[in-house]
Order: sequence, then C-alpha cells, then structure tokens
Amino acid sequence: MTVKNAFYAQSGGVTAVINASACGVIETARQNPKAIGNVYAGLNGILGALREELIDTSKLSAETIAALKHTPSGAFGSCRYKLKGLKENQAEYDRLMAVFQAHNIGYFFYNGGGDSQDTAHKVSQISQSVGYPIQCIGIPKTIDNDLPFTDNCPGFGSVAKYVAISILEAGLDVASMAATSTKVFILEVMGRHAGWIAASSGLAQQTPGQAPHIILFPEVPFDPDTFCAAVKQHVDTYGYCAIVASEGIKDTNGNFLSASGLKDAFGHAQLGGVAPTLSQCVQTNLGYKCHWAVSDYLQRSARHIAAAVDVEQAYALGAEAVKFALAGKNAVMPTIVRKSSKPYAWEIGEVALEKVANQEHKMPADYIRKDGFHITPACRAYLEPLIQGEAYPPYVKGLPDYVRLAHSLVERQLPEWGG
Amino acid sequence: MTVKNAFYAQSGGVTAVINASACGVIETARQNPKAIGNVYAGLNGILGALREELIDTSKLSAETIAALKHTPSGAFGSCRYKLKGLKENQAEYDRLMAVFQAHNIGYFFYNGGGDSQDTAHKVSQISQSVGYPIQCIGIPKTIDNDLPFTDNCPGFGSVAKYVAISILEAGLDVASMAATSTKVFILEVMGRHAGWIAASSGLAQQTPGQAPHIILFPEVPFDPDTFCAAVKQHVDTYGYCAIVASEGIKDTNGNFLSASGLKDAFGHAQLGGVAPTLSQCVQTNLGYKCHWAVSDYLQRSARHIAAAVDVEQAYALGAEAVKFALAGKNAVMPTIVRKSSKPYAWEIGEVALEKVANQEHKMPADYIRKDGFHITPACRAYLEPLIQGEAYPPYVKGLPDYVRLAHSLVERQLPEWGG
Repeated sequence: MTVKNAFYAQSGGVTAVINASACGVIETARQNPKAIGNVYAGLNGILGALREELIDTSKLSAETIAALKHTPSGAFGSCRYKLKGLKENQAEYDRLMAVFQAHNIGYFFYNGGGDSQDTAHKVSQISQSVGYPIQCIGIPKTIDNDLPFTDNCPGFGSVAKYVAISILEAGLDVASMAATSTKVFILEVMGRHAGWIAASSGLAQQTPGQAPHIILFPEVPFDPDTFCAAVKQHVDTYGYCAIVASEGIKDTNGNFLSASGLKDAFGHAQLGGVAPTLSQCVQTNLGYKCHWAVSDYLQRSARHIAAAVDVEQAYALGAEAVKFALAGKNAVMPTIVRKSSKPYAWEIGEVALEKVANQEHKMPADYIRKDGFHITPACRAYLEPLIQGEAYPPYVKGLPDYVRLAHSLVERQLPEWGG
Repeated sequence: MTVKNAFYAQSGGVTAVINASACGVIETARQNPKAIGNVYAGLNGILGALREELIDTSKLSAETIAALKHTPSGAFGSCRYKLKGLKENQAEYDRLMAVFQAHNIGYFFYNGGGDSQDTAHKVSQISQSVGYPIQCIGIPKTIDNDLPFTDNCPGFGSVAKYVAISILEAGLDVASMAATSTKVFILEVMGRHAGWIAASSGLAQQTPGQAPHIILFPEVPFDPDTFCAAVKQHVDTYGYCAIVASEGIKDTNGNFLSASGLKDAFGHAQLGGVAPTLSQCVQTNLGYKCHWAVSDYLQRSARHIAAAVDVEQAYALGAEAVKFALAGKNAVMPTIVRKSSKPYAWEIGEVALEKVANQEHKMPADYIRKDGFHITPACRAYLEPLIQGEAYPPYVKGLPDYVRLAHSLVERQLPEWGG
C-alpha cells in the first residue's frame, strides 16, 4: 500500500461533537502510518482546500487531538460554501484536484450534512475521471437529524439533551412562580424545516402536567386561536404552561412566524424571534405574564451537557470512515444502524454517497400527537436512547477546559486561488 | 427549651440552589427535635402563611429532603408578594401572627432578597409587640447578587457559571462559522439594575481574542456608534465578535433599550429583547450576519451546571439560619464572608436584618474597564471563586433526576383569609 495523505474538512453549522469525529479520524489515521501519512485539515472547511490552507495535524500532540473529543464547535473552522455542479463550476473541482495532487492526498473525509455528502460524491467521480483516484468517505453531521439512511446524526443527540434539560429546568422555575407571576414560558429552538429538535424537548415530560405542555412543530401549521385555547387550558388545569417552539413554525398561509410583520421604530422589518412573537400573542389574547428564551447557538455548542452516546457515535463514525478507506472503500458514508431501542443497541452501517444527496430524513407523521401539540410514544421510543449518558468535559477554574488549536499551515505548492 | 414549629418560605425569583437552602434548614431542624418540632413550608411563599396553606415537611422522607439539594427552582412554590408597611396593612401582619400562633410556630425562616429580609424584620418586631415572640432569621437568595453585607448571594454563582460557559461555547461556535457566515453573536442575560451577571461572562475570556469580546452593562449608557465601532474593530481583528448584553442596558437618555420603539404589525409596542434590538443595530450599521440568544429562565434554573461552591453556600446558609435560631438569635441573616480570594476561603457571618433592607450591593466602578466594554482584573478576582466546582445532579434516562414534592398540607385551624 502506498502512503498517501488524508484531507479532512468540517462543513456547515457546527455541533457539540463534530470535533469528536475529527478526533476519531486523526487518531485512527495515526494508528495506520503505513497507509496514511499526514492528516491535513481544511482551514474553514472546503475553503481550506480551495485556498490551499491546509492545517498540518501532525504538529498537534496526541493529548491535543484527544482533547478534541470534549471540545465543541469546529476546531479547524467550518464554512457555509456549497460547491456547484460540475458543469457550472469545473474550475473549482479542477482546483481541488490540483491541491490534492500537490499534497499527495489520497483520502478525502468530509464531515457534514447532505450537501457535503453530495460534494464528496462528486469529488470521488472527478478524481476517477482525471486519473488521480481519491477515496472519498463522508462522515455524517447535523443537529437537524435530517440525513437519510442513518438512524440518527451526530450532533443531534446533544442538542436534544440540552433542549430537554432546559425545558425541564425552566418548567420547574415557572411552576414555582406561577401563583403570582409568570404563567407562560416559551423556549425557541432550532429546526427550520423539521421538528426533530422541538420534539426532543418532549422527553422532559413524564406526566401530562409537566413541561413541556405544548410543542410547536414546523410540520404543523400554526393557528393562533387553537394555540391560545391550548395555553389557556393548561394554565387553567396546571397553573402554568411551558412551551417549546421550533424556529421554523409557519402560519396557515405558509409564512414563517418569525417574519410575520414585526417592524422597528424606523419601519424596518424586525428579524427573527418566534418566541417573542408567541409571547406577544399570548399576552394580547390571554393577558398572562410571559417569559421567553431563545437558545440559538447555545443549544448546538453545549458540550458541557453533551449526550455520551452522541460523543461515542461521533467518534466512531470518524474512526470507521478511516477504516472504510483502509478497506478500499470509496464514495460511501458510515451510518448508525439501530439494532434495538430497549435496551439501546447500535452498530455502524454503510451507505453509498450517491443515495444520500437530496434526501431528507423527515419526522414520521405518527411521531406527532394528533392534536399537533406533542410527541407520541413512538417518537419518545426513538428519541430516548439518543440523549443517554453524560460525557462531561474536564474543568479548570470553574470552566470547561476546551482545546484551542494553534493552526500550523502546510507550505504552499501552488499559486493563489482566484476563486 | 420548649418545642416550637418552624415556618420556612421561599420568596421572589427562584434560583438553581434555593432548594439547597431549604434542604439545609430542614435537615438541620430535624437534627434538633428537642427545640424544633415540624418545619412547615409556605405553599407559594408567604402567601402560604396568609392563606394558611402550610406544607408539612415531616411527611417527606430524608431521601426526598436530600434531593432538594440538587433540584432547581422553588420546590414549595415562591411568590412575588411584598407585604406593605405596618401602617398600610396591619391586617396582613395580624393574619400572619394568627396563623403562626395557631400552628405553634416559633421560628420564621425567610429565604429571599432585600424585600424579604425587610418583611422578616417587620414580622420579628410585630411578634414582640403582640407578646408572641417569633425568632425571625433571613436566608439570603438572589441571582442578582445585590444584597449588602454578604460577599455574594446564593444563586448568583450558578448563573455566573452558566453564563460564562454559554458564551465560551457559543464563542467557539461563531469563531468556526465566521469565515463565511455569522460574524456577530449576542447573548442577552438577566440583570435589570446591576451588571453582576453580565460581568460574570467575562470570566470566559482568557486572552483578548476570546469571547466575550464586548460586555454591555446597565451601569454604562449605551451609545450605538461607540458600540458599532467596537464591534467592527473586533471583527476586523479577530474575524468575529461575541457580545454579552445585560437586559437592563439603557440608552443615553436613560430609556431601557428593550423598550426602544419596536412595534408589531398592529402598532403594539413589542416586548423585550435587548439582543434582537442590538442584532438589528449591528446588521443595519455594519451589515454583518448576526445570531442572538436570550437565556431568560434557563440561566437561573440551570442546576445541571450549578457551581459546587454555590450549592455548598446555599446549603450552609440554610443550616446556619437554624443554628442561629437555636442559639437564640433573632432578626438576623447569615452572610458569606470572604476570607481570601486566592485560595478562596469563606465563612459564615451575621448581619442584623434592619441593616439589610433598602440597600443594594452595586458593582464597584473599578470592576468595569474604562472603555465600558469589559471587566477589570479586580472584578475577575472577585468573581472567579464563585463559579468553582461542578455539583452534577444524578441522571435517569439521560435527564436530571430532580425531585417533585407531593405537598401534604397541615389541617386548617383558622377561617379562610379574606386578603
């Protein structure tokens, strides 16, 4: 086996555990020096390849690489940059191939969502066609849990755990204040197209009286009257109402609620905020005192409370991607296959990249309760295993000891990229 | 010593550790059965006394009481209800005395902020004047850290830890996205009048390039131009800018920024949200892509990441309050006295309740950097010890195993309260 270098890149929105996948890739590559030389990581994702900004991970100690497993976000930098189709932008693919050849790269590990898997597939095809074959292996990652062919996506379980804990805790808070003060609490969570994250908050509810009382999914058109009636019913019955709303909920005309006409003093459309919009709706129609929170990046970067199973799977998928490459595989992505929910058991599977692109893993209709305001037992059975275990990072002076990499770039071999 | 019962109540906004104080009170009382009979907790705070809704904590197992130490929010219910002055509302105080006498209550433990300490002081005075003396001991609690005579307040350290961890994690997230996407992130935190909570986020910054880059304090008038210039400078230098803003920041005319003219489609004033207002300001003036989060109740209920020292102090103050009572003390509050910052050492002190009322523990001017946008080393030295240690709750099925009390009310002795 000829020794080739590997290229690894992080893509799209980062997660609490994407660096655990990076750790799995690099540690496994280091265990196989006869096949894989250096692992070069793209500075800011695929842009690092286009710009020939390659981070030499061989300069990083084993201890530093191990610390990636407990460090959130993208340690090498990520990017939102989608390579166009081959016909629209041959130049970008040519550049990629030139950089890969210049640095003797024979393995391409792309850690991202659906678009990234599509890109990895294209790179594989092009590399064949130009006679410099590169083994391209995708590594799944997305908090949205919307990749097909894998039971779940690394990053999602930790967001799910964060969101469920947050509404559990805030629910107890509102319950203790409701006699004389706040009666309604609204937590806005991510999920523009699918309700996976909002759904996961439902795990916090063990009995009907507990938070969250109402979950608003992007899959269910939002009707203010039905919503307010449900809020009132919960306040009447339990004294308070704790709500989790997906940022992606739409009104019955299909418009995002977060863009439903709020304007500032100068008449500018006000940006975002499903939670304040819902709060306004409740206060105007029902007169209850409301509080609201928006988790935003906190939910996807909350490594301090990541699910142990999520960290483990993220690492395993990175490690398996390298093993796939060593086994001669190409244009595939390792997946999570669920063997059993109770007790939870999983193993690594495999899917061809060409199948992954342009498909979404949507919430099954039978995961949403018939009234549209909560999850079903089937949904709970699916979600519950994914938030198991706590994988606490080490702490120094009261704060998590996350690693920050000093990026050592590989010497350039090519002229600057004009892209 | 005659056996008397004790009354314990939680007051005002709840915290991640107020139940640890309750645990300290009840466990210590149980260790002294020759002096203290039952501990009755007010259902929803002082309202429970007025309404004669007394929770009989003797029905709760030792295991349940111990679990209070790791359970956030007010397990017995809290309330926002300030007793008026004696002259304005003699009837309320008469009722309190009637309830206390009917249930042989000789000890009053009031767990709250400044107003609550004032009430405890008044109850002590009245009980003397009506010839039914009650020993009234205050127990400090407030996330705002604004009580005088105590180095810090239970509840604050855990919020401080949560906020510092949140901006640390979100800062890493933005750093990895900034090359092609979000360049500015804003986290809104509590603190309407004092910047203690916002200040604590500053602990996350170890070097100037790290988050938070900018902290906005209520003590510093907000000027959009200076702010935007600072944001631009950080984006130019570090590629991104992570900001923590207190909900209480005001413009140069003294108006809350959260009420600065946003209107909805119907012309209603839009409620709250310093973070979205700042986000709009940055996007309009600088054109950077922004993300924002509002922690709201999540920050004060986040028992999952409470500071161990905060839990320990909350428990100790509850326990000491009972010991004060057993020692014959009255109209006092135990306090935290700092003996040393490095290494951190503290002990329990004591202050008369009459001194506590109507005083605020404000941020010293030399805790805010001269440009108004960050904390000073003196501030860091004060804050750092308060977030030390992790006191993780137990977990079941991936979620914290918080206790929920079944409230068993003591049999009524009096007619219903007309208040």
